[in-house]
Amino acid sequence: MAISPLAPAAFPSLPVIDGVRFATVAAGVRYKGRTDVMLAELAEGSTVAGTFTRSATRSAPVRDCEAKIGQDGTGPAAILVNSGNSNAFTGGAGERSVAEIAAAVARVTGTDAARIFTSSTGVIGEPLPHDRIIAKLEELNSTLDAGGIEAAARAIMTTDTFPKGASAEITVDGKPVKIAGIAKGSGMIAPDMATMLVYIFTDAKISRAALQDVVSRLTDVTFNCITVDSDTSTSDTLLVGATGASAANCDGNAEFEAAMKSVMMDLAHQVVRDGEGATKFVEVAVTGARNNADAHRVALAIANSPLVKTAIAGEDANWGRVVMAVGKSGAEADRDRLSIRFGDITVAENGWVSPSYSEEAASAYMKGQELVIGVDLGLADGASTVWTCDLTHGYIDINADYRS
Amino acid sequence: MAISPLAPAAFPSLPVIDGVRFATVAAGVRYKGRTDVMLAELAEGSTVAGTFTRSATRSAPVRDCEAKIGQDGTGPAAILVNSGNSNAFTGGAGERSVAEIAAAVARVTGTDAARIFTSSTGVIGEPLPHDRIIAKLEELNSTLDAGGIEAAARAIMTTDTFPKGASAEITVDGKPVKIAGIAKGSGMIAPDMATMLVYIFTDAKISRAALQDVVSRLTDVTFNCITVDSDTSTSDTLLVGATGASAANCDGNAEFEAAMKSVMMDLAHQVVRDGEGATKFVEVAVTGARNNADAHRVALAIANSPLVKTAIAGEDANWGRVVMAVGKSGAEADRDRLSIRFGDITVAENGWVSPSYSEEAASAYMKGQELVIGVDLGLADGASTVWTCDLTHGYIDINADYRS
Repeated sequence: MAISPLAPAAFPSLPVIDGVRFATVAAGVRYKGRTDVMLAELAEGSTVAGTFTRSATRSAPVRDCEAKIGQDGTGPAAILVNSGNSNAFTGGAGERSVAEIAAAVARVTGTDAARIFTSSTGVIGEPLPHDRIIAKLEELNSTLDAGGIEAAARAIMTTDTFPKGASAEITVDGKPVKIAGIAKGSGMIAPDMATMLVYIFTDAKISRAALQDVVSRLTDVTFNCITVDSDTSTSDTLLVGATGASAANCDGNAEFEAAMKSVMMDLAHQVVRDGEGATKFVEVAVTGARNNADAHRVALAIANSPLVKTAIAGEDANWGRVVMAVGKSGAEADRDRLSIRFGDITVAENGWVSPSYSEEAASAYMKGQELVIGVDLGLADGASTVWTCDLTHGYIDINADYRS
Repeated sequence: MAISPLAPAAFPSLPVIDGVRFATVAAGVRYKGRTDVMLAELAEGSTVAGTFTRSATRSAPVRDCEAKIGQDGTGPAAILVNSGNSNAFTGGAGERSVAEIAAAVARVTGTDAARIFTSSTGVIGEPLPHDRIIAKLEELNSTLDAGGIEAAARAIMTTDTFPKGASAEITVDGKPVKIAGIAKGSGMIAPDMATMLVYIFTDAKISRAALQDVVSRLTDVTFNCITVDSDTSTSDTLLVGATGASAANCDGNAEFEAAMKSVMMDLAHQVVRDGEGATKFVEVAVTGARNNADAHRVALAIANSPLVKTAIAGEDANWGRVVMAVGKSGAEADRDRLSIRFGDITVAENGWVSPSYSEEAASAYMKGQELVIGVDLGLADGASTVWTCDLTHGYIDINADYRS
C-alpha cells in the first residue's frame, strides 16, 4: 500500500529508555513473512498505567488488561502484542488464548503473569492462533534489545502505511528523563477512552497512581480528540511503562506531564496522518460554546461529517456543510452569533457569509495539506479542538476489501 | 447522473386528490433550463400539518413554516418549493426572501399569507434570488393542474436520480379516501424530526390537530428511521395537506393512519434507494434491547458506520464490524447474549461465530441488492428498525464536487 502523503519524512530517532527492551518476530498469525508479534520487557522497578476502549464489545486482551492495570507493584513487567487478529468477539476461547499467552510469557521470561499485558489487533471474530505466538516466545526472549523500538512499531501495524513513534527528553531534579512511544492505528478510529494500540516508555520514577492520573487526564485531550471515521475499535489500548531508571522523581511533576502530553499528542496526530485514504490533515477548533462538552460535540460533528470530509477531499471551501454539522450536533447554537473561518480566512459571521469573504482565497487555502476549520459559537467560553482527515476514494478502496 | 440501481422501475401512477392542483416552472434559481419551482394549491376546507428538522441552523423557510403550522383554519392554502438554493444560513435576507415570496403568492393566488408554506432546497449560504421565483408566479397560477404531481416531484429534485411518489386508497364510512405524496432526498439524510422535503396530500376530512398527531407519530417510525450518511439537513420539511373533499371523517381513524404510514414508509424507503452512490438497500433490525431507545441507538450505530457501509459495498459478510458498531453505540450489550444474522443466516451467537455459519452462504447473500442485518441483544424487548444504504465511490464522487 502507498505510504500516506501525510506521513513524516522518516521514523524519528527515539532515545533508548533504560530498563526497556524489545523483540519482534514473524509468527504467521494471519500473514506469512511479516513481523506480527512484539515483546517489550520492563525491568524491576517499573510502574505501568493504561487506558482502554469503552466499547461494550471490547476484546478479551482489553478485558484482561483492565483487570490487571490497577494493581500496584514495581516488579518486572512485559507487554506482548500481535497484529493480524484482534481476539475480539471470540467467546470464552478468546479469554483462554489470553491466559495461555500470559502464562507462557511468564514461564519464558520469569515475569509474574499478573504483570503481563497483551494486546491483539486485526480481524474481529476469528480464533487467535495463540500456539503460533507461544511457539516464538523463546526466540523473542533471547533477542530482546534496548534499541528495538522501531521494529516494534512496525510489528504492530495493520492497515497503517507508516510506523509511528515520538519522544521527549526533559530534566527533572537535575536528572535527564526520557520518554519514547509507539502507536498503530489508521481506521476504526474514534477513540472513546484510549485508542488504537499505543505503548509509551519512560525512565521516569513515578508511582503507578501518579502515572495513571497523568495518563488518564492526557488521554482526554489527545487520543480522545482524534477521529478518522467515527468508528470505535474493540481493541483500543494505551499502556505506559515507567522504569524509574533515571532516578528522577516525576510524581506530580508538571514538566513531565507536559513532555508526556507532547509525546501522546504527536502519536495521536500521526494516527490521523495515517487515516485510511487520508490526503489532508484537519484541525477543527471550536470556541465560544456554552461549555466544553458542547464545544467537543460540535467539533466531532464537523470532524465526523461525511459531507464535510468529502468536501475537504474535493478541496471545496464548502462552509455550508460546516453550518449543517453545527446545526445537527445537538449543541446550543445561534445562527447569528456563529462565525466560521478556514485558516485565517473569515468565511461566515453574523448569520451569513462574511462581507470580506473571497471564494478564490478560500479555494486556494483548501488546496493545502494541513487545514484548520475554526468555529466560534459566540455564546460563552467552552472550547475543544479535534483532529481528523478527509474522506476519499482511498477509504472506500481499503474498507470495501480489507477484512478487519 | 445515472439513475440509482435501487430505483423503482417507473414513477407510480398516483391518484388525483380532489382539492389539490400543481404547477411547475423553470425559474433559473441556480441552473438554467430545468424546472425548479413547484406550486401546490389546496382548496377551501383543507387542513395542513407538518414536521421539520430540529437542526439548530435550520433554514429561513423552515422557521417560517414552524411559525405557521400550528394555526387552525380550513381556508385555501398553498405550498411553494424551489430547488437549487436552500435559503439556509442567509441571515436576515433569508427571512425577507421568505416573506416576499409568501406575500407574492398571496397576491397572485388570493390565499392568506399565513396559509402559505415555502421550502427551499439546494446550496447553503447563498442569497435566494427570490425575484426569479416571484416573476414566475402568474405563470404558475395560470397552469395549475390536478394531474401535475409527477412534474412537481421532478421540480423539487437536487442530487436525486429519480422522482419519488407513493399513494394509498382506502374506504372510510363507505367513502373512498385517497392519499398521494412526493419526496426529494438523496444526501444529507439523517432525519431528526422530519426529513428532506416531503409533501403528502389526501382528500380525507380530518381536523388539523388530529392530522398533526398522526403525522408526528408516524414520522418517528418512518422518516426518522432512515439514514444515508448521518448528516442532518438544515431544510428537512414534511407537509401534509388534507382537503376534506372525500367527506370521509378520518379523525382518529386507524385505517387512515395505516394508509398514511404506508405512504410515508414508501417515500422514506425511496429516499434511501436514492441515497447518494447507493448500490444496496439495507434494513437494520434490532431486537432484544433493554428498551426501544437503546435498540434505535444500536440500529443507527450500525447504519451510520462507515466501516459497515463500506463492507456492504464490497459485498463482504464482515460481521465483525457489526459487532464493533454494537460496541460503540453506547447501548447496553453483552457479548455472550448478542446474536447477529444476515438475512436468514445466523452469523454469530453466544459470544462468537455460530457453529452453523457458512462464509460461502453469507458471501452469496451479500451479493443481493436488498439486505437485512438482524441483531438481537438478548436482554429485553426493546426493538427498532432503520433503513440505510451502502457507502461507495459514488458517494465520494458526488460530494467531493457538488456544492450543497
